[in-house]
Amino acid sequence: MTSAEAIGVGMLGYAFMGKAHSRAFHEVRSLEPPLVPELVSISGRNAEAVEEARARYGWAEAVTDWRRQVADERISLFDNGGPNALHAEPTTAAVRNGKHVLCEKPLGRTAGEARSIWVEAERAGVVHMCGFNYRFVPAVRLARELLEAGELGELYHFRARYLQSWGIEAPPSWRFEREAAGSGALGDLGAHIVDLARYLVGEPTAVTAVVRTFITGHEVDDAFAATVEFESGVVGTLEASRLARGRINQNTFEVNGSRGSVSFDVERLNELQVADEGGAFRRVLVTDPEHPFMRFWWPPGHIVGWGDTFTHEIHHLLTAIAGEGSVAPHGATFEDGYRCAEVCDAIVRSAESGRREAIAYRGSGE
Amino acid sequence: MTSAEAIGVGMLGYAFMGKAHSRAFHEVRSLEPPLVPELVSISGRNAEAVEEARARYGWAEAVTDWRRQVADERISLFDNGGPNALHAEPTTAAVRNGKHVLCEKPLGRTAGEARSIWVEAERAGVVHMCGFNYRFVPAVRLARELLEAGELGELYHFRARYLQSWGIEAPPSWRFEREAAGSGALGDLGAHIVDLARYLVGEPTAVTAVVRTFITGHEVDDAFAATVEFESGVVGTLEASRLARGRINQNTFEVNGSRGSVSFDVERLNELQVADEGGAFRRVLVTDPEHPFMRFWWPPGHIVGWGDTFTHEIHHLLTAIAGEGSVAPHGATFEDGYRCAEVCDAIVRSAESGRREAIAYRGSGE
Amino acid sequence: MTSAEAIGVGMLGYAFMGKAHSRAFHEVRSLEPPLVPELVSISGRNAEAVEEARARYGWAEAVTDWRRQVADERISLFDNGGPNALHAEPTTAAVRNGKHVLCEKPLGRTAGEARSIWVEAERAGVVHMCGFNYRFVPAVRLARELLEAGELGELYHFRARYLQSWGIEAPPSWRFEREAAGSGALGDLGAHIVDLARYLVGEPTAVTAVVRTFITGHEVDDAFAATVEFESGVVGTLEASRLARGRINQNTFEVNGSRGSVSFDVERLNELQVADEGGAFRRVLVTDPEHPFMRFWWPPGHIVGWGDTFTHEIHHLLTAIAGEGSVAPHGATFEDGYRCAEVCDAIVRSAESGRREAIAYRGSGE
Amino acid sequence: MTSAEAIGVGMLGYAFMGKAHSRAFHEVRSLEPPLVPELVSISGRNAEAVEEARARYGWAEAVTDWRRQVADERISLFDNGGPNALHAEPTTAAVRNGKHVLCEKPLGRTAGEARSIWVEAERAGVVHMCGFNYRFVPAVRLARELLEAGELGELYHFRARYLQSWGIEAPPSWRFEREAAGSGALGDLGAHIVDLARYLVGEPTAVTAVVRTFITGHEVDDAFAATVEFESGVVGTLEASRLARGRINQNTFEVNGSRGSVSFDVERLNELQVADEGGAFRRVLVTDPEHPFMRFWWPPGHIVGWGDTFTHEIHHLLTAIAGEGSVAPHGATFEDGYRCAEVCDAIVRSAESGRREAIAYRGSGE
Repeated sequence: MTSAEAIGVGMLGYAFMGKAHSRAFHEVRSLEPPLVPELVSISGRNAEAVEEARARYGWAEAVTDWRRQVADERISLFDNGGPNALHAEPTTAAVRNGKHVLCEKPLGRTAGEARSIWVEAERAGVVHMCGFNYRFVPAVRLARELLEAGELGELYHFRARYLQSWGIEAPPSWRFEREAAGSGALGDLGAHIVDLARYLVGEPTAVTAVVRTFITGHEVDDAFAATVEFESGVVGTLEASRLARGRINQNTFEVNGSRGSVSFDVERLNELQVADEGGAFRRVLVTDPEHPFMRFWWPPGHIVGWGDTFTHEIHHLLTAIAGEGSVAPHGATFEDGYRCAEVCDAIVRSAESGRREAIAYRGSGE
Repeated sequence: MTSAEAIGVGMLGYAFMGKAHSRAFHEVRSLEPPLVPELVSISGRNAEAVEEARARYGWAEAVTDWRRQVADERISLFDNGGPNALHAEPTTAAVRNGKHVLCEKPLGRTAGEARSIWVEAERAGVVHMCGFNYRFVPAVRLARELLEAGELGELYHFRARYLQSWGIEAPPSWRFEREAAGSGALGDLGAHIVDLARYLVGEPTAVTAVVRTFITGHEVDDAFAATVEFESGVVGTLEASRLARGRINQNTFEVNGSRGSVSFDVERLNELQVADEGGAFRRVLVTDPEHPFMRFWWPPGHIVGWGDTFTHEIHHLLTAIAGEGSVAPHGATFEDGYRCAEVCDAIVRSAESGRREAIAYRGSGE
Repeated sequence: MTSAEAIGVGMLGYAFMGKAHSRAFHEVRSLEPPLVPELVSISGRNAEAVEEARARYGWAEAVTDWRRQVADERISLFDNGGPNALHAEPTTAAVRNGKHVLCEKPLGRTAGEARSIWVEAERAGVVHMCGFNYRFVPAVRLARELLEAGELGELYHFRARYLQSWGIEAPPSWRFEREAAGSGALGDLGAHIVDLARYLVGEPTAVTAVVRTFITGHEVDDAFAATVEFESGVVGTLEASRLARGRINQNTFEVNGSRGSVSFDVERLNELQVADEGGAFRRVLVTDPEHPFMRFWWPPGHIVGWGDTFTHEIHHLLTAIAGEGSVAPHGATFEDGYRCAEVCDAIVRSAESGRREAIAYRGSGE
Repeated sequence: MTSAEAIGVGMLGYAFMGKAHSRAFHEVRSLEPPLVPELVSISGRNAEAVEEARARYGWAEAVTDWRRQVADERISLFDNGGPNALHAEPTTAAVRNGKHVLCEKPLGRTAGEARSIWVEAERAGVVHMCGFNYRFVPAVRLARELLEAGELGELYHFRARYLQSWGIEAPPSWRFEREAAGSGALGDLGAHIVDLARYLVGEPTAVTAVVRTFITGHEVDDAFAATVEFESGVVGTLEASRLARGRINQNTFEVNGSRGSVSFDVERLNELQVADEGGAFRRVLVTDPEHPFMRFWWPPGHIVGWGDTFTHEIHHLLTAIAGEGSVAPHGATFEDGYRCAEVCDAIVRSAESGRREAIAYRGSGE
C-alpha cells in the first residue's frame, strides 16, 4: 500500500500461530515497512480447513503441500508456523531454496535438531528468525535498553516464571503425548523464559532442576523448577507450570542489579516496573512515543495488545530482509533458537542426573 | 476475503481517528463480519497529507472534498473521523444521501447541534453510530452484562474519572482555543465517562459541578468535577482533568450495588475488578473465549490492545447494517451522542449558576 | 518507665476508642515521651463493663461518673472517647477545671456545638486536641511534608473517598438513628476526609452535594457525594458511603499538582504513591527510619498497624503538654474540629438547597 | 492487669528483638492471656545500654550476666533474643533449670547445634518455642487453615523468596563476617521461608542450590537460589537475597494446588491473595473478626502491624505454658528450629557438591 517494494510470503500452518502471523502481515503495512508483504499462499494438510483460513486471513492461495511453497518462485519469505514436528524438514527445504525464513519456537525438538536447522540456514546465507515474540513487547525491549545502557549496574539476579492453569482439567490432547509434543511446560512455556533470560542477561552456563508430571495420563512434563547460573555471574531461578491455579498467563521476569531492577508480567503487557537506587519499584506505562515501537501506535496510555507484538516482529524481519538492519541482537536468530534448546536439554538432564549440568554451546561450523 | 458481501466505505479524516478506524476496517476482516469493508476513499483538505494517509492505510482513493464521498454511489458507509467542527455538515449530508454513518464523538459541539444530526439520521432511516469505543472494551461489556443480569443487585453509586497529565506543559494548540475546540477536558474526556455512565447505570437527571481553567492562555476548561444523580436513584461523581500528574490515561469507573461492585481502568484494559457479597474485589482477566468479543482473539491471558476496540466497534456496526442486529443498546446511536451532550451542557450550566441543574432529554420528533 | 515526669490520665469510654487509646497510652512509653502517662481512671455508665475494661486495659480505677474524673486532682489529661452526644458537656467541664483534653471526632454534633467546646478550651488556656488519628499515619504525614516543601508545585485537585460496605446488611443500631448518631456516613467517615483535605490542601470555601439514605429504616445518611473548592483554587470531590460492596475500609485521597501528585489508601497504610514530572506513580513504602515516626519502630519494610497511629497521636499530645511543641499544625486542635464541622454542615445545606454553599469560619473570640 | 496468674519473664538481648519482644509482653495484656507476664529482668553485656533498655521497655531489673537470669527463681520463662552465637549456651542452661524458653531463630548455627538445644529442652520437659513470628501473621495462619481444610486440593507447587536490598551499600558489619554471623541471606532471610514452607506444605526431602557472595569483603552469602522437593510430592523454589534493588522486605510465598492457590507478601501484611477454580486471584483483607487473631483487634479494614505478630506469638506461648494448648503445630517448637537448620545445611551442601542433596531428619532420642 505504500510505494515500498513487495515481498511474496508463503505460510505453513493455519491454527493459533497462523492466525497471529496472518494478522501481523496485514497490520504491518501501516507501520511503513521497507518491504510490503504479499500474501501468496498458506498451506496445511486439511484442504477444507486451509481454504477456510485462506479466505478468513486474506491469503491468495491455499495449498496442501508445503513443498509447493518452498519451490514457489513468487515466495521470498517462508513462514513456518506449523507444529513442532514440522519445523525441521520444511524450514531446511526452504532455506536450501534460498527463501528467507521465520520459524516458530521451539526451533527443533532437541538441541541437535535445532542446530542442524541453524547450520543449514547459515550455509544458505538467508535471513532467519525464530519466533520469540516476547522480545517485541515494548516493555521487554525497554528493559533490554536499560540493561544495555548500564542503568542497572552490576547484575546479580534473574528470576522468571511462566505459569498457567489450564493443564489441570484439560481434556486428552496431543499436547500431553510425548511423541507429538516432545515436551510439556518446558518446551511450551519454559522456552520463552529461557529466551528472555538470554536476551536480557546473557548465556546460561549451568542449571540444576526438577521436572514433574503430576497429572495421570500425561506423558510430558506439567512443570519444572530450576536454578540457573550465567556467564556474567548472575544467578537465579526459572520455573514453568501448567498447573498453577489463579495464574492465567503469568509470564514474568525480574532482574536485580547493583543500581536498579526491572520487573515485567505479560498479563500487564504495557507496563514495566523499574527500581533505581532510590527505593521501591515504580510502574512505567510503556506507551510514550519515545518508548520502543510506540511511535507506530497511539497517544500515551492507550495500550497495545499481545497480537501487536507479532506486527513488531514482522516489521523487524522485513527490515532485516531489506538490508536495513539485522535480525540480531533484538530479534532471535536460529542460533538463538538452538542455544535456547541447549538450555532446555540441560534442564532435562539435570532432573534425571540430580547434578548441576553445565551447558556447552556449539558453533555452526563445527 | 470471506465470501460475505462487500460494503463500500468512505472516510473523512486521516489523523488519530483516521489511523484507528483504518486499521480496524482491515482487522475486522478476520473476525468474519457479515459485510466486508471495501476502502473506497479517504478525504482531507491537505492533498499531500491525505494521499500519504491513503497509501499507508490502504484506501483506494484520496479526495480533498468530502462532498465527493457523500455523493459517491460506491460508498454505503460514511465514517466521519474529522474534527468536531466538521461533524454536523458532512454527517447530515451523508445521511440525506442515504449513507449509513459512523461519527466520532462528541456528536455535536452542543446538545442542540447533536440533536439536529440525530433527527436527520432518524428521518433518513439509515444506521447511525456514534464512536464511543469504550463500550467495545471486553471488560466494559462484561460489566454491562453483569449489571443486566442483576448480579450487582440494587445500584447505589457510580463514580468515574478520566485523568491525564499532558495539559500541564502542552505547547499552544487549537485544543485550548474555544472557537476550534468548543470545550476542553469536558468534551474530550468527560464525554467518554458520561457515555459509560449512561451505558452502565442509565439516564442522569441532575448534576452539580465546578469547571476550571488553571493554565494561563487556555480558553477552554482544564478540568471539571461534578456530582450526578440518575433516574434509578444512583448518586455519584464525575471528574476529568488534563492536569493530573502521574495519570497518563486513567479512565476509570466503579459501580456499587447491594450485591456486588465492578471497577475498571482503561490503563488495564483487559481487567475487570469484581466484588460480590463475599468481600473484596478480585481481578478478572477478561480474555477467556466466553468473555465478550474474546472468541475472536487469543487463548486466555493474551491481551487485546486499545486499537482492537475499534475493530469490535466496526464489527458491531457492520452487523447492524447487514440487518443482523441493531446498534443499540450495545453501540451508541446518535441519540446517545445527543443525550451525552445534554449532560455535558448541564455540567457547564451548573458551574455557572451554582445550582443543581436538571437534565431534560428531547425526542427526535419534537 | 523512663525517668520522665508522670502525667495522670482519665479516660471516658471503654468501647472501640477506649481500647485504641488505652493501648496507645501503654505503647507510647517505649517511644520516650517527655511525660509518662499514669492511667488513673476509666469511666463509663455500666459499672460491670467499665470494671472489666479497667482490668483488661490496665487502668488503676473504674468510675461510673465522669464528673469524678474532671474533679480529680491526680488527673491532668482528660481523654474523651465517649459517644458523640457525650463530647460537649464532659469536655467543657474538664477544660474549665484546667485539664488538658483529647476529644474524639466529631468534636460536636453541629458546627455550633463544636465551636462552643473550642471557645471554652481556648478561654481555659489548656492544650486541646481532636482525635483525627489519620494525620498520624506516617504516609499521610509524608504527603504533608512533600506538600509543604512545594514538591507538588501549584495544586490543582484534591479528591478523597471513604468507602465501607457493612451498612448494607447491618442489623438495627443506634448508628442509624438520627437522635443518637446525628449523622451517618457524613459524620462517621466524611469527617475524616474533610480533616485530611484541610490538613493537606487548606480551607474549603464552597461545596455542592447530594446526600442519600438508601436503606429502609435508616434515619441518617448512608452516603454523600460532593464537589469542593478550596481557598487555594484547588477543586475536587469528596465522597463517603457505607454501601460500597468490595470496599472494606477504603479511605483514600489524591492530590494533583503541577509538578507531582500523591495518593494514599488506608487499606495500605504504610504506602504512599508518589508521582513527579517523570511520569507514573511509584509506591513508596513509608518504613524507613527517616520517614515520619518510623524512627520509633522497625527496620525498613516492617509495617506499623492502624492502632499504632494512636500511639503517634498520644506522643504528639504529650510533647505539646510538656511545652516542647504545639498541637497545631500536625495535630488537629479543637479549632480544626470546629472547622471540619462547618464543612460537614455546608454539605448538608447544599444537598437540601440544591445550591453551591459557601463556608464561613468563625473565630473563637467573636 | 486481668485477674490471671502472673508469670515471671527474663529476657536476654535488648536490640531489635529485645524491643519487639518487650513491646509484645506489654501489649499481650489486653489480649487476655491465661498468664500475665511480669517483666523481671533484661540482660546484656553493656551495663549502660541494658539499663537504658530496661527503663525504656519497662523491665524491673537490668543484669549483665544471663546466668543470673537462668538461676532466678522468680523467672519461669526465659526469652533468648540475643545474637546467634548466644543461643545454645544460655538456652540450654535455662531449660536445665526448668525454665520455659522462647529462643529467636535460627535456633542454632548448624543443624547439629540446633538439635542439641532441642534434645536438652525435650529432656527437661519444658515448653519451648522458636521465634518464627511469620507463623503469627493472620494472613499466613489463614493460608494454613485453607490448606488444612483441603481448600487447595492436591498440592503441586510452593515458591518463596525473601528479598531485601540493604546489603548493596551496607557499611562493614559483623553481619558479613563468617565467625560472628555464621551465614548471610540464608540464615537471616532463608530460614524464615524454609519455616513457612514446612508450616504450609510439609517436610522438604531434597534441594539443589546455588549460593553466592557478590560483594567484595563479605565473608557470608549475599544470596541463594534453590529448587526444593517435598515429601508430599510438591516441587518449587526458594530464594533469598540482600541485593535486590527495589525490594525493601519482600517476603513472599505462593502455593498452587489442584483446586486453588494462595499468595502472600509481608510488605502487604494484612492481605492474602486467594484463587479458586473460578480464575484469577482475589485480595482478601485479613481483618475480619473471624480471621485468625483478629478478634483481638479492630473493625474490618483496620490493619495490624508487623510488631503485633510478636504479640500473637507471645499469647500463643503463654497459652501453651498455662497448659491450655500446645506450641505445635501453629507455633514453631525447637524441633521445627532444628528441622529448618537441616534444610539450610542441605542448601549449603548442594551448592558445594553440585548435587541434589537429600535431607534426613533425626529424632530427639537418637
